[in-house]
Amino acid sequence: MSHNEMIQLNQVQVTSEFWQRYRNLVVKEVLPYQWEVMNDQANINIADDPQNNGQDNNSHAIANLKIAAGLKSGHHYGFPFQDTDVYKWLEAAAYSFSYHQDDNLKKMTDELIDLIADAQDDDGYLSTYFQIDAPERKFKRLQQSHELYTMGHYIEAGVAYYQATGNQKALQIAERMADCIDKNFGLKDGQIHGYDGHPEIELALARLFEATQEQRYLDLAHYFLNQRGQNPEFFDEQIKADGVDRDLIAGMRDFPRRYYQAAEPIKDQQTADGHAVRVVYLCTGMAMVARHTGDQELLAACKRFWNDIVKRRMYITGNIGSTTTGEAFTYDYDLPNDTMYGETCASVGMSFFAKEMLKIEAKGEYGDILEKELFNGSLSGMSLDGKHFFYVNPLEADPTASKLNPGKSHILTHRADWFGCACCPANLARLITSVDQYIYTVHDNTILSHQFIANEASFSDGVTVTQTNNFPWQGDIKYHLENANHKTYQFGIRVPQWSQDEFSVAVNGQNVDATIEDGFIYLTIDQDNVDIELTLNMATKLMRSNNRVKANFGQVAVTRGPLVYAAEEADNEAPLWDYHVNTKDDTTYDYQEETLGGVGVITVPATREQLESTDDALYKSIDDVPNEIDAQLTLVPYYSWANRLNGQMRVWLYR
Amino acid sequence: MSHNEMIQLNQVQVTSEFWQRYRNLVVKEVLPYQWEVMNDQANINIADDPQNNGQDNNSHAIANLKIAAGLKSGHHYGFPFQDTDVYKWLEAAAYSFSYHQDDNLKKMTDELIDLIADAQDDDGYLSTYFQIDAPERKFKRLQQSHELYTMGHYIEAGVAYYQATGNQKALQIAERMADCIDKNFGLKDGQIHGYDGHPEIELALARLFEATQEQRYLDLAHYFLNQRGQNPEFFDEQIKADGVDRDLIAGMRDFPRRYYQAAEPIKDQQTADGHAVRVVYLCTGMAMVARHTGDQELLAACKRFWNDIVKRRMYITGNIGSTTTGEAFTYDYDLPNDTMYGETCASVGMSFFAKEMLKIEAKGEYGDILEKELFNGSLSGMSLDGKHFFYVNPLEADPTASKLNPGKSHILTHRADWFGCACCPANLARLITSVDQYIYTVHDNTILSHQFIANEASFSDGVTVTQTNNFPWQGDIKYHLENANHKTYQFGIRVPQWSQDEFSVAVNGQNVDATIEDGFIYLTIDQDNVDIELTLNMATKLMRSNNRVKANFGQVAVTRGPLVYAAEEADNEAPLWDYHVNTKDDTTYDYQEETLGGVGVITVPATREQLESTDDALYKSIDDVPNEIDAQLTLVPYYSWANRLNGQMRVWLYR
Repeated sequence: MSHNEMIQLNQVQVTSEFWQRYRNLVVKEVLPYQWEVMNDQANINIADDPQNNGQDNNSHAIANLKIAAGLKSGHHYGFPFQDTDVYKWLEAAAYSFSYHQDDNLKKMTDELIDLIADAQDDDGYLSTYFQIDAPERKFKRLQQSHELYTMGHYIEAGVAYYQATGNQKALQIAERMADCIDKNFGLKDGQIHGYDGHPEIELALARLFEATQEQRYLDLAHYFLNQRGQNPEFFDEQIKADGVDRDLIAGMRDFPRRYYQAAEPIKDQQTADGHAVRVVYLCTGMAMVARHTGDQELLAACKRFWNDIVKRRMYITGNIGSTTTGEAFTYDYDLPNDTMYGETCASVGMSFFAKEMLKIEAKGEYGDILEKELFNGSLSGMSLDGKHFFYVNPLEADPTASKLNPGKSHILTHRADWFGCACCPANLARLITSVDQYIYTVHDNTILSHQFIANEASFSDGVTVTQTNNFPWQGDIKYHLENANHKTYQFGIRVPQWSQDEFSVAVNGQNVDATIEDGFIYLTIDQDNVDIELTLNMATKLMRSNNRVKANFGQVAVTRGPLVYAAEEADNEAPLWDYHVNTKDDTTYDYQEETLGGVGVITVPATREQLESTDDALYKSIDDVPNEIDAQLTLVPYYSWANRLNGQMRVWLYR
Repeated sequence: MSHNEMIQLNQVQVTSEFWQRYRNLVVKEVLPYQWEVMNDQANINIADDPQNNGQDNNSHAIANLKIAAGLKSGHHYGFPFQDTDVYKWLEAAAYSFSYHQDDNLKKMTDELIDLIADAQDDDGYLSTYFQIDAPERKFKRLQQSHELYTMGHYIEAGVAYYQATGNQKALQIAERMADCIDKNFGLKDGQIHGYDGHPEIELALARLFEATQEQRYLDLAHYFLNQRGQNPEFFDEQIKADGVDRDLIAGMRDFPRRYYQAAEPIKDQQTADGHAVRVVYLCTGMAMVARHTGDQELLAACKRFWNDIVKRRMYITGNIGSTTTGEAFTYDYDLPNDTMYGETCASVGMSFFAKEMLKIEAKGEYGDILEKELFNGSLSGMSLDGKHFFYVNPLEADPTASKLNPGKSHILTHRADWFGCACCPANLARLITSVDQYIYTVHDNTILSHQFIANEASFSDGVTVTQTNNFPWQGDIKYHLENANHKTYQFGIRVPQWSQDEFSVAVNGQNVDATIEDGFIYLTIDQDNVDIELTLNMATKLMRSNNRVKANFGQVAVTRGPLVYAAEEADNEAPLWDYHVNTKDDTTYDYQEETLGGVGVITVPATREQLESTDDALYKSIDDVPNEIDAQLTLVPYYSWANRLNGQMRVWLYR
């Protein structure tokens, strides 16, 4: 038995109480609910959705597929990318089978695969809007059409469904789509020398390559990345030929080329600009293709964008996208809390990007950000009941402001039933049902344990890892490693950046001196049974921003372990800006089983200015000092906000 | 000779150096420049205007009148209210004759009156857009047509021109317009039971009543005020009849009824909601009509709106309008500094409102706000060269933010040549040329001196007042009163709110104990010659907001006398948020002749956080304290900002 053979991850069963609750919620509530929505059987109300542009309360997503399949007549309804709601739901369902076999669901999803196959054109093309209502415009307006984005989402779902169930048809649909795209796109004569306005096909083709080892798919993904921005006029030329006024999505034509990451070739793009979801989907594809091809320019671009996002454009919760206009990045250090975007999908996509970067290099920062997204910016997208969703995730919210200041009308202060553009709910669902795939990364002979999500994992060569913990509430992370075959391998454990000042590691009950290398400590494992205990620093911390961030100047955010905390009006008398955190005195921490499905609650000592009268002068001398009263701020994890009162919320608090 | 006879103000000659500079600038630069612009002879560039919606660089305003007069052919160009640029310019020119006789200008304006008369329809109607391109739609879409707004602006100009020059034709055009409107609007059968979407006609008709004593005009103004909001469906009904999709101004239909102050009758409106300029124009008309008719409900509404604006919705500079969406008010205490609107026209209109309220009651607060507008929020609308203008007046500006954060794209950080919607430049010009009318208000036998703008004023009964000062730079306000006829009258002097803690009054060299009554001190004058010296407190003050204002929490603004100060990047290393004002140490003040046309410059001690590296972590523990360095902030008057470097600016500074 070779000790140097590469280790492979076989399976991970999540046992984490925290995540099991969410994973069961997706199975019990989210998937059935979204299925009803997509079948127009749910009693939803999208009037809450500030982006709702006159859509009715039905999704029509399944109906569109039925029309394309010839099973129903009528017109397409919804966005050109309405199909993706179905595909992301399917992908989420596929992952759920790994922890929840459900014959009924399986029957529905098998039938859905049949429906999708029926809807697919003979040449592999599938985008119901164009098939039903605009067949002559296929691939003619890629800036707005989302055709490759749509097929990319199916490819992801098809691969996942095939891998979960062995359903060959699911994979064949994906292959036929990829073949259709491969035929139509490329640098040969007669091919379209272009790409989709919304990146996604790149990462999808890379996944299909990983599933099939078909080099053409990787080459095609690489083509799309290389070609992007090479001819900045590409979209304009298509639009001119297609008819300028015939927009598929109103207003999209007005966005600058950087919105689409199409202003210049990727290798020349210095900053993470434009629509945030597009950026992180593109980066995920870039990282996958860079890893498989060794393209160093692409890898450099991955790292450049990563650094720009993580060091200069990310909210402390992991949310990204500083403006609602174009759901986009703005510029370095521009992180307003009350007019921001922070789309749920963008945090989900950032998780994809982090996961892929971890496959490239064992750098703890990727795990840190992945953790930040999983426990904060992504998770906040769903209510505790699994039936209400945030598209936009602000760090400061005020129902009055959202109602009466139009610059904040995109900030919902309660989660909505559904959205006219319903990208986020199913995106989050597929992240939650696949979270088992985000815990370990294997590099050759090294297992990286980078997420503290309790689980039982089996690897090749009889290696098993049982991780037990009560994370994110407690910081004792226990591993039991079995190694029946006496394989020698490295076990790397990420020490989160938030605990690097204080942590300890014991192996079989003996403390060891562990040196952190790029965020990980490494142990050489060659014994049958090894017990490791990592103790993390779960102290409540007061954080500040780099002082280049204007929006948070003079303010603190409270964190504990991986969680960012928020003050809500449900616990604290409004207005919430009117508190000064007392940074000298002690905070308290108390896990409350009955609060918000079980959360650790933090209290922070503060003083509060007694609110002045509404008949008082609006401006006065600073010598006229308002009364200060002792107060206390009660904070709950950011992901759990807006599950009670529809009230104010703040992450950043004045000192 | 009766001593109780009412005093009347005859004439005021402004001698103030500060205001003479501006008034001469309007004569030498602004009026000729705007004339060229309106005649499409200026080399302007409205590409800078973020609201420019594809307009070309020509105004076409005079051309439209020529077409309507049959002197030229072609279509109307520009907004439906394009004519008002001409009328406001004419009004400004009319006022300028009181201090600058100019035969050439007089010839141009007389000819302009002839052109306007030629453009006017036989029935008195005049709105070139409808005359040229849509005669069948006259008065059919008042929500957007601005027809009464447009004619109202002419009426103001016509009255002013008649009063300045005696030109009867100018007045007759106004009377014929009013007669046309009187015929078409009212509660009789066959009349339109409606009103204009943009208030203005109310105050214009009241002015016409004041000039002509024709009761019908006052009644008509009163009708418009009473009728407003009585039928909230009025605009919708007109739009339905006119054809829903035939908008005159794109997007206007989407604004809520409160935007137009038309959701409910004025007497029921509790807060100052909607488009800020509309609100203050409406309030001005309300105050005029309330005064002339004694309508107590109207007066109560004036005071209600005044209080709401001044106590809860006004920036410290006097600017109003918290959002660019609808150029509107939002809600009480919502005063964001970097996404605000603060339209120049709104501050001009607020000056009108304050002036009218002063005529109703001798309350210093009205004079305080008028002063605030004159020296800050209005004046900032024009550059020192008289050729560049702000439409939007932010209290915090950053060129990078304006360029790269779309939520701030409406914030220009340098004044523009001109605007597609060019309401502001001429509005400010007419305020400056008529500022002599904003200095005194006479109530029966009392002269109120409420503005410290040096002047020589003559009243009835041989009363003259010579006010000398070097305001706003110095606080010694001297009056020499002559009273050859030994009239006994009260002379009220406003003690500004900012000086009420410390001031002194001397009469003929003797200090007197003066009690402030509602913001004024009163002296009984019966001697031939009286010298009064008021000494105001010109100390630099650090101000704060009522703590209900979230945007300014923990921040201070620096004021001195009537002036609000601002920190500019021209004087202070950016970023400007990165300074903590040291509120304990002394500030300095220095009048600098050579700076910005002569301004008092203030320095404030501060500390500054050394900026952290762009490679530094974005978030860190508060225990990781950035280096503080001693610094100093140099401040200049807010009105004078953006006359040097195109850089950052802040009014509110961290403590």
